[in-house]
Amino acid sequence: MCGIVGYIGARQAQDVLVSGLAKLEYRGYDSAGVAIRGAGQTIEVRKKAGKLANLAGELQGAPLAGTLGIGHTRWATHGLPNDTNAHPHATEDGRIVIIHNGIIENYLTLKAELSARGHVFKSETDSEVLAHLIEEKYQQVPGNLYEAVRLALGEVRGAYGIVVTHVDHREIVAARTVSPLVMGVGEGEMFLASDVPALLPYTRKMVFLHDGDMVVLHDDGFRVTDLSGNDVQRAVEHIDWDAEAAEKGGYDTYMLKEIYEQPTALTNTLIGRLHDATGEVNLDINLDPGSFKRISIIACGTAYYAGLVGEYLIEQLARIPVEVDVASEYRYREPLVSEQTLAIVISQSGETIDTLEALREAKKYGAKTLGVINAKGSSMTRELDDTLYIHAGPEIGVASTKAYTAQVSAMLMLALWLARARGTLDEARAQELLHAARELPRLVEEALAPERVAEIKRVAEKYHQARDYLFLGRGVNAPTALEGALKLKEISYIHAEGYAAGEMKHGPIALIDANLPVVVIATESRLLEKTISNVQEVRARAGKVIAILSDGDIENAQHADDVLYVPRAHEMVSPVVNAVAMQLLAYFTASALGKDVDKPRNLAKSVTVE
Amino acid sequence: MCGIVGYIGARQAQDVLVSGLAKLEYRGYDSAGVAIRGAGQTIEVRKKAGKLANLAGELQGAPLAGTLGIGHTRWATHGLPNDTNAHPHATEDGRIVIIHNGIIENYLTLKAELSARGHVFKSETDSEVLAHLIEEKYQQVPGNLYEAVRLALGEVRGAYGIVVTHVDHREIVAARTVSPLVMGVGEGEMFLASDVPALLPYTRKMVFLHDGDMVVLHDDGFRVTDLSGNDVQRAVEHIDWDAEAAEKGGYDTYMLKEIYEQPTALTNTLIGRLHDATGEVNLDINLDPGSFKRISIIACGTAYYAGLVGEYLIEQLARIPVEVDVASEYRYREPLVSEQTLAIVISQSGETIDTLEALREAKKYGAKTLGVINAKGSSMTRELDDTLYIHAGPEIGVASTKAYTAQVSAMLMLALWLARARGTLDEARAQELLHAARELPRLVEEALAPERVAEIKRVAEKYHQARDYLFLGRGVNAPTALEGALKLKEISYIHAEGYAAGEMKHGPIALIDANLPVVVIATESRLLEKTISNVQEVRARAGKVIAILSDGDIENAQHADDVLYVPRAHEMVSPVVNAVAMQLLAYFTASALGKDVDKPRNLAKSVTVE
Repeated sequence: MCGIVGYIGARQAQDVLVSGLAKLEYRGYDSAGVAIRGAGQTIEVRKKAGKLANLAGELQGAPLAGTLGIGHTRWATHGLPNDTNAHPHATEDGRIVIIHNGIIENYLTLKAELSARGHVFKSETDSEVLAHLIEEKYQQVPGNLYEAVRLALGEVRGAYGIVVTHVDHREIVAARTVSPLVMGVGEGEMFLASDVPALLPYTRKMVFLHDGDMVVLHDDGFRVTDLSGNDVQRAVEHIDWDAEAAEKGGYDTYMLKEIYEQPTALTNTLIGRLHDATGEVNLDINLDPGSFKRISIIACGTAYYAGLVGEYLIEQLARIPVEVDVASEYRYREPLVSEQTLAIVISQSGETIDTLEALREAKKYGAKTLGVINAKGSSMTRELDDTLYIHAGPEIGVASTKAYTAQVSAMLMLALWLARARGTLDEARAQELLHAARELPRLVEEALAPERVAEIKRVAEKYHQARDYLFLGRGVNAPTALEGALKLKEISYIHAEGYAAGEMKHGPIALIDANLPVVVIATESRLLEKTISNVQEVRARAGKVIAILSDGDIENAQHADDVLYVPRAHEMVSPVVNAVAMQLLAYFTASALGKDVDKPRNLAKSVTVE
Repeated sequence: MCGIVGYIGARQAQDVLVSGLAKLEYRGYDSAGVAIRGAGQTIEVRKKAGKLANLAGELQGAPLAGTLGIGHTRWATHGLPNDTNAHPHATEDGRIVIIHNGIIENYLTLKAELSARGHVFKSETDSEVLAHLIEEKYQQVPGNLYEAVRLALGEVRGAYGIVVTHVDHREIVAARTVSPLVMGVGEGEMFLASDVPALLPYTRKMVFLHDGDMVVLHDDGFRVTDLSGNDVQRAVEHIDWDAEAAEKGGYDTYMLKEIYEQPTALTNTLIGRLHDATGEVNLDINLDPGSFKRISIIACGTAYYAGLVGEYLIEQLARIPVEVDVASEYRYREPLVSEQTLAIVISQSGETIDTLEALREAKKYGAKTLGVINAKGSSMTRELDDTLYIHAGPEIGVASTKAYTAQVSAMLMLALWLARARGTLDEARAQELLHAARELPRLVEEALAPERVAEIKRVAEKYHQARDYLFLGRGVNAPTALEGALKLKEISYIHAEGYAAGEMKHGPIALIDANLPVVVIATESRLLEKTISNVQEVRARAGKVIAILSDGDIENAQHADDVLYVPRAHEMVSPVVNAVAMQLLAYFTASALGKDVDKPRNLAKSVTVE
């Protein structure tokens, strides 16, 4: 996690760092800090717990002068999020200042050894250990900061993006294993950041660093090596993204903006890929659909739930056995993978470290790999055999909305493509399903009609004081229930939990009393009658039922305390439409509680630590 | 759900019904009721919301005379648990009285039709509809109660056990589809019940009714037919169970007694099956271990979590792909099953309707079937190709304890058997694992040592006011975390949720604040270092960490607010040992809150409705 920015050139570094960190705050906001090398052979550090605004305010009052600097926004892993634990970290004499993003697994051992040799630590972080270790190495190779960093990294076990400055050097040394770093190339100036948006105002010429790369930045260029010190070549790429696209537009929050962007996002996901006249699906991937016997879907969080929908769709339509795993579990369970397995990873950022490592594990066993990814040029896309981009555009809100519905739509397209290629879906039914999928942008637009949104807001506000929530669904909408619960939990901190509706009576039913709102997804489906039976069970115990029903279902409305109607949709595409109602319910609940929905506590957008 | 008792003979029916219902109260306790045919050509009905004691008290004050009667304990599905909705249900003239266990899916349609023809309903139940329907049919075949019931059942869609009496008939008519019914055969008297224990004080000669059976009971015998009216033969079996075994012994509750029974139960599960000198596993099943390519495990609730442990063990040891499904989902998703699939169902009672129906679904596609079952003679055992009995003895506490650890142990044996038979486990490693498994009764005995139990009680009481709980674990103990959360939820009504530890930061971490206790299973394992990283993440957000550590792990104790030590166990068998600590934590938390742990609200032991 965390966001890093570095600058060396003719501008005042403070301006570049603060504006860059503002673009990266979605990566963490437990604290922020900068270090700037001033004229007088010193490096000044300023850092502050809490959001970037705290630090920015202080810097405005007393700016730091200097044209070389590094900055950081933190998502706490080791140590509480306070001023002391904030980055950058300096050695005792203040001559070496570093920023570190990731986890040093052997930091306790290193810290004990360094303490024994007289080093004194100010913070509880694993990162400070790195500063002291580099200081020791620098004594062995005086005058060569690059070499000191390289030697230090040789003793470190873990994941890192690291940026190092020294009072005596007009250069920035950086290295990465699993934490992303990108360089921006300017005229007589160089930039460094965890992600592209931080650099867009300054340059569009960028260099993506790979795993195991080290780099030295000077005013007029850079040098990339591997960890053994050998030069390596990295191409300078031109990035044509629109920086404005990542702003909030007219909405109060990124999340709400992104909820409303879904008709557009889904259009981009689907466009040109489905031909309902012929039942043909064109995903522009090289994968041979007959080359595997099992599919293993791997993801985390919201993307995991998109994977569960994918499992249902692929098994139903293409009749291939699918297993879905949480990435952090998959990595360590010696999975049953072979050349006859297709491993599908789902990740918005393409950087989620658990998923990236699971992908590497699957590759080790010879699996074919396919990614369902949003961010182009991300780490995963460089390691995958094939990538099915979801084209949802930048997603800044920490709670995923448009990326989720785009992921689900991508899984639907993939299921249809596999089914057609493997002959398990005849042309007539393919046409029916392709048509239903192509309707999704329109259906989601309709789901966002003002009167529906107003009704969801009313219901959210009615129950916003609830301490707990249950979400129930069946079949292809069982994962929708899980995702609905996760969304509410993430941004409102209400303890929401999702269950397959039929499983409720095997345990969670004990929670039900008159204080518990239960959201039941009961849209048109073969299983609707069964789901309504579960609604009866909830009501027989005085639970409050919020039913998600298809337009026109008056009959089942009588069983519910509150009804949220959604547009009628084919069962197989309904998870996308129903997810929109879940997102809005979570959004308005969190808003009613006064929560900062774009920056929920403890969460960060792209989880690049294990 | 629900419990049924019926009697016809020379005794006072009330005594038989009340004593029988007391044995069946574990099946439901929302209300109780009896109907007794008196001397004066009337049937008197008494029923009462709440536990059986309410009704029994009333009957003691004003007994009902008569030697033919039926009784019921209810677990509410349609309608609130109140006096009106309690069973039995009578027609308006009181001449026909019925008890019904199950769900009539088309009751709304039937009720509308009956109302249109002048019937007036007193309750909101689907069951009352049946009484009126039988009344109508009886007018078509006056004097033939059996035939009236048979005709009525022809119009009913759903699941039922039904028992019917009529003022003019000295007979009881009963029928079942999916709800279990067993007859007891006496000398000049006949008994009927949902389960064996209700009949043990009276007779050991029993007849298990099958799906689709109808029966007429007279003082001196019975007749079984199918729903078309053809006679069928059902054998009279001798049952030699010990009725005392189902009593509480010296413990306050069945649950605590069953927790302490685990060393014995596990001995029974394992005995004679593992030969660690040779690495041989003998499960006495006919299954050909080379006859399938995939395994599908199907279960509900606690048994589902035993299935997840089984998945991990089978994939690790026998390298066969395993998928685990919640039964209520499996039934309806057109699962990928063939003759090359082994379907394993896990159920304590062998009656869980969702699991039973899923088993039938798997059989339909030609799967081989194996059950991991506790109750002999249960419905599933009659339909399975093979049964691996867990021999845990009767489990009365609604929250499963000894059945869970026995199920996990059975899955371990099964994984070892498959691994040996398929050559994926060499003799040396087999011996090591068999030895570890044989240690389980001793390890669980040690886990129940008084000083450990006292410490768990202390921690439970320290946090018993918490509104929420998280449970985290990795690998083979990820399901242990899920089961720990379920146990706490079931009996304390605290909203506990389990997660794979590495998945926490992808969402649930938003819930963490200083009020949230987080139980982390961090016993000896390859993944311990990773798990401790997750502990750091919890503490960095001020969450309270209750760590489950292996004896002697002083180092990691420093990261926890409270530590519960468990005996050191091989990682592959540790889920059994760790589960005991989870059970006791749940137990003492619920006790501190004054909850009735044996009869948690809304839950019933054997879930025989969908």
